[in-house]
Amino acid sequence: MIRGRVIGQVWATKRAPRMAGRKLLLVAEQVVGDSGLRDTGRVVVAVDDLDAGAGDSVLVAFGSGARNAVRPGSRDVLVDAAVVQVIDGSTV
Amino acid sequence: MIRGRVIGQVWATKRAPRMAGRKLLLVAEQVVGDSGLRDTGRVVVAVDDLDAGAGDSVLVAFGSGARNAVRPGSRDVLVDAAVVQVIDGSTV
Amino acid sequence: MIRGRVIGQVWATKRAPRMAGRKLLLVAEQVVGDSGLRDTGRVVVAVDDLDAGAGDSVLVAFGSGARNAVRPGSRDVLVDAAVVQVIDGSTV
Amino acid sequence: MIRGRVIGQVWATKRAPRMAGRKLLLVAEQVVGDSGLRDTGRVVVAVDDLDAGAGDSVLVAFGSGARNAVRPGSRDVLVDAAVVQVIDGSTV
Amino acid sequence: MIRGRVIGQVWATKRAPRMAGRKLLLVAEQVVGDSGLRDTGRVVVAVDDLDAGAGDSVLVAFGSGARNAVRPGSRDVLVDAAVVQVIDGSTV
Repeated sequence: MIRGRVIGQVWATKRAPRMAGRKLLLVAEQVVGDSGLRDTGRVVVAVDDLDAGAGDSVLVAFGSGARNAVRPGSRDVLVDAAVVQVIDGSTV
Repeated sequence: MIRGRVIGQVWATKRAPRMAGRKLLLVAEQVVGDSGLRDTGRVVVAVDDLDAGAGDSVLVAFGSGARNAVRPGSRDVLVDAAVVQVIDGSTV
Repeated sequence: MIRGRVIGQVWATKRAPRMAGRKLLLVAEQVVGDSGLRDTGRVVVAVDDLDAGAGDSVLVAFGSGARNAVRPGSRDVLVDAAVVQVIDGSTV
Repeated sequence: MIRGRVIGQVWATKRAPRMAGRKLLLVAEQVVGDSGLRDTGRVVVAVDDLDAGAGDSVLVAFGSGARNAVRPGSRDVLVDAAVVQVIDGSTV
Repeated sequence: MIRGRVIGQVWATKRAPRMAGRKLLLVAEQVVGDSGLRDTGRVVVAVDDLDAGAGDSVLVAFGSGARNAVRPGSRDVLVDAAVVQVIDGSTV
């Protein structure tokens, strides 16, 4: 998983059928520098079922980990990234 | 998923059998800088079934997420990236 | 797998149901430079069942390798990174 | 998939049993710059069943997409990258 | 797969049960520059069953490709990278 910061949301009318109804967040990847966390500029788009909002620090899982978050054991989910935690705190 | 911008298309006559008939888009990866979105130069090639065109902002899914977009639950699809949304708008 | 250094821990109350009870470590990715190992700044978040602590050098596996570390043969684990070794030593 | 340029070939006598008989190409990853495509220096090694040669522009698929290219639906193929198209042309 | 150079080995006493008995190599990723191959500094840790040694040029497969190298068709292997060839020669 990576740690990121929610910076926004995307929406669409033209989409693959099974994407309908999914809330999609823009999450900025963060790295650790000399003065703590900073954004790298890279952005991933992740499904969110945890009601995360702009500014929240989140954990994003990828691949089948993400699909399992969306629907356990499923084999036909077409997302590849999902918010699996809204972070309360951390030691860095 | 990543957010990208459609910059073109590729075509081929010599290809793996099950690639025939697929529309393949060149999608430029985008990052968030001080003045909004900008291209990184990195390009992914993604299957498109949503009729996206040059200049469109799209969401690209990877791995089995992409294969599920092409054919749900399938285990023999050989693409690894697919356009799953044409983005109408976003807060960034 | 990658080699990394444990730099901290994250916690959360709002999370996907099956993330409960998991210890999550922040692991700094390391590369080899002229004067040995150094951090790149990139951080991955990995499940830890091996009782690794801050400062430990660890091996992190990704994808289904990580899910197999958490529960062998499982298809519904939603983590995508796990500590699979605490490194005692290495030739670099 | 990524777009790349074939720059050479590798061969080996010591290899995992099921790698025997596979033609393996060195493919240079390409990005889009101000003056068109250029190499990044990164190189992937991909199985080729399409008779691609040095200088060819190709499409490389990864992960199970690549394994499906080598043998559809197979679960025991050990390559993770395969040439799935030799590109005839593109708009970039 | 990527091409790399074996630079060392790691060992551990504290590890996930099914990691026991595995030889783990540190492999430096290589890119192609103006004067041939050079290390990027990035290091992957890969299981080796081919008796590769320090200085050897090797091919590393990732994901289920790597798990299939370790045990064909297996679904409970927890490594995500494996040496699948010791390279004898290449045109670059």
